[in-house]
Amino acid sequence: MGPEEFREAAHRLVDWVADYRAKVASLPVRSRVEPGEVAGALPGSAPEAPEPLSALIEDLDRVIVPGLTHAQHPRNFAWFPANAALASVLGDILASGVGALGISWQSAPALTELEQVVCDWARQLCGLSEVWHGTICDGASTACLVALLVARERAVAGTAGSQREAGLQACPAPLVVYTSPEAHSSVAKAALLAGFGAANLRSVPILRPSRAMDPAALEKMMAEDTAAGRRPAAVVATAGTTATTAFDPIDTICGVASSYGAWVHVDAAMAGSAMLLEECRALFTGIEAADSISWNPHKWLGSVLETSLFYVKEPAALVSVMATGPSYLRSSRDGAVVQYRDWGLPLGRRFRALRLWALLRLEGAEAIRARLRRDLANAARLAGLVEQAPGWRLVAPVPLQTLCVLHVPEGLAGEQLDEHTLAWCEAVNSTGEAHLTPAHLDGRWMVRVSVGSETTEWADIEALWALMQRTARTAAARL
Amino acid sequence: MGPEEFREAAHRLVDWVADYRAKVASLPVRSRVEPGEVAGALPGSAPEAPEPLSALIEDLDRVIVPGLTHAQHPRNFAWFPANAALASVLGDILASGVGALGISWQSAPALTELEQVVCDWARQLCGLSEVWHGTICDGASTACLVALLVARERAVAGTAGSQREAGLQACPAPLVVYTSPEAHSSVAKAALLAGFGAANLRSVPILRPSRAMDPAALEKMMAEDTAAGRRPAAVVATAGTTATTAFDPIDTICGVASSYGAWVHVDAAMAGSAMLLEECRALFTGIEAADSISWNPHKWLGSVLETSLFYVKEPAALVSVMATGPSYLRSSRDGAVVQYRDWGLPLGRRFRALRLWALLRLEGAEAIRARLRRDLANAARLAGLVEQAPGWRLVAPVPLQTLCVLHVPEGLAGEQLDEHTLAWCEAVNSTGEAHLTPAHLDGRWMVRVSVGSETTEWADIEALWALMQRTARTAAARL
Repeated sequence: MGPEEFREAAHRLVDWVADYRAKVASLPVRSRVEPGEVAGALPGSAPEAPEPLSALIEDLDRVIVPGLTHAQHPRNFAWFPANAALASVLGDILASGVGALGISWQSAPALTELEQVVCDWARQLCGLSEVWHGTICDGASTACLVALLVARERAVAGTAGSQREAGLQACPAPLVVYTSPEAHSSVAKAALLAGFGAANLRSVPILRPSRAMDPAALEKMMAEDTAAGRRPAAVVATAGTTATTAFDPIDTICGVASSYGAWVHVDAAMAGSAMLLEECRALFTGIEAADSISWNPHKWLGSVLETSLFYVKEPAALVSVMATGPSYLRSSRDGAVVQYRDWGLPLGRRFRALRLWALLRLEGAEAIRARLRRDLANAARLAGLVEQAPGWRLVAPVPLQTLCVLHVPEGLAGEQLDEHTLAWCEAVNSTGEAHLTPAHLDGRWMVRVSVGSETTEWADIEALWALMQRTARTAAARL
Repeated sequence: MGPEEFREAAHRLVDWVADYRAKVASLPVRSRVEPGEVAGALPGSAPEAPEPLSALIEDLDRVIVPGLTHAQHPRNFAWFPANAALASVLGDILASGVGALGISWQSAPALTELEQVVCDWARQLCGLSEVWHGTICDGASTACLVALLVARERAVAGTAGSQREAGLQACPAPLVVYTSPEAHSSVAKAALLAGFGAANLRSVPILRPSRAMDPAALEKMMAEDTAAGRRPAAVVATAGTTATTAFDPIDTICGVASSYGAWVHVDAAMAGSAMLLEECRALFTGIEAADSISWNPHKWLGSVLETSLFYVKEPAALVSVMATGPSYLRSSRDGAVVQYRDWGLPLGRRFRALRLWALLRLEGAEAIRARLRRDLANAARLAGLVEQAPGWRLVAPVPLQTLCVLHVPEGLAGEQLDEHTLAWCEAVNSTGEAHLTPAHLDGRWMVRVSVGSETTEWADIEALWALMQRTARTAAARL
């Protein structure tokens, strides 16, 4: 396909995208397809001859759109926001269109340097000091894995257990990783993949009602492990847990970890965006003492997906674990430039920085902060309504924009309450008018209302609240 | 930014992209910026107020484009092709525009099922049997890491060394990984990150002149390791090595590996596209006996970057290593659907399949095969010219589309020859008229000519060859 054919086709698809965004609020938020329905509606093999764009657009409308749960819907309150703000989409169009290859500075200097620039812009917006150096990962799972690999190698440096020697399988003392039971599932996954083993992954108890990691319990565990000949290697502290957006006390955790020589990674995947707001920064107190931080502008902030920021204080430690340096990638510039392939897992990357660059430039920091404040205010307002409504409860504090709610008909508890919770939540979702997702809290189901889709206004939340009350009442009447 | 503002802005950017592609052949292939020049030309912090699109476009032209080495240039012969075919760009525009969130089947059924569909389309095009099940990774580095993690867990299953127990640090017998010195640098990186340790990574000698792994040497090493109480865990065989596109004998390697119970991962990152051509399939003989395969449609085939296919025979083995299953991601559909988050490292993914879907549908398999054949024929034709030219040598066989060449002025050898090689290669690159990259072969520099950019025609190769001869002559005259 040549540039002129592309020009015509891309104009049509841009119109299709604009039309999709304009009408998305009228679509059922959660997809209604059955498993296999999308695959079954498509041909079983690739076409031999080229198909016209119209055939592709037809399938978009006929098969793909009905098969989507619309993350960009204003009444999407499921999981966490995954805003693909249209300003960021513009940057991504450029990234695909230019088709730059990021395997070394030399292969696309602007790709590397713009990534440095936007990581630094984002750092400043968050109020982080100049000691932090950033890169863009695909997601916080990858960032956590990278952090734990670097922590692992720091803990075994100079021993046979180093990856440059006999590797973890020759580790002289078991290395231990600590996190809270409220940490994201990717933390345990990363610890297991990095080879620490489930037996060396400690679940540090949480405090109530904050649901934050108990630093005294962390200290006790580290002391016990050390006394038993094990070595604390890393702590993953969460700023904004997935279920309730609880904030682990980073300050105290860093103090404890530092006395045992353990790496501290702060997983702020969702809540990192809140660092843009001065009034939220107290939630992150102590973050400057951590060793690495990740947060996802592809959640609340609005950058297109696979834009996760990963900051470290000492890039040299990262590079020493990740660098390879084969001849075919060497260049005369190597000493003078950043080689992002040595800052993470993948060798090659697309022009990731453009998404965030376009978002920040075309929206401006002020408007982004205003949007985040709108969401915090709306979440707080809804929390007020829930608290005052008979039968309704907030089952966790609301430090950010996510509410954890229960509707408790008189006398209902245990499994029956679970059934009721899942029933009204499912009833909300099956209307197509809003989307909520449930999660476990202390072994019982509750429903999360995560405010923060880009187009969600108070009217959407009001409508959701009316819908929640209606479906819960109906479900309760059936008990 | 609302849909209408986006519509207008996106039309302008689509025109900008079409114009960029239309003029890219006239730009210097390799960027001429100095380190720090791009970053220095941009503001030190994000704007508070929104900027107009025109400001962004101005910076694209003023800063970004001069800072690019143009992967889409018809005279780009550097590294490997990284074709972002415009048909695939169309798919990516849809992916960004729709902004679907791939964290579970439920979060975007069409995203999951279209990924299944296109992975299967690609499998069929490659002539692979139905036993293979695919997913899309960001790159082959990630695929190799995933493969080695699964291989590691298979090797320690049922022991304390399992990640579900005490992890690799409690591994009863050292696990060993085998690959050739010609394997991509990401293989060693993956083995080290997976915790095997450099001491347990074997470099299996290669055969000459093929530069393929010597399976007899592999067998000997495995026997020695086994006798010494170590356990062969995995072999990474390369189909199309980075330096010379050598093909390891997959058939024999699988036979050897299987008798020691080792996993075989085939890294066909570049060459995988050649499986689309019946006449090239003999290069991959035995691939059906492997355990996992990766190949990158984002190289020669033409899909936008971060489209790397990873196939396994037993998804259950993959899932058992990668799955987590937290409450907030559970749904009533879990048993009936594929959850791609359990097939690799990241939890969330964008709508990756659209890039490959749009490419295959809008171009059709026939035209893609014709393009690949064009490149093979052009590479063979250039090889013929090089072989016949006085002073020029092909220093490796040309099984695919990459030539490894030397210009050897009479009597020149060793370091002086290295200097001459790097000098004429740099002279080619500094003209801006073509881009070549050098690499090491047996400790000496040679120059790679990797044919396969989407728009590269014979005239481009003729021009390159004239330029190579001119610059080599000039460099030789200065000796």
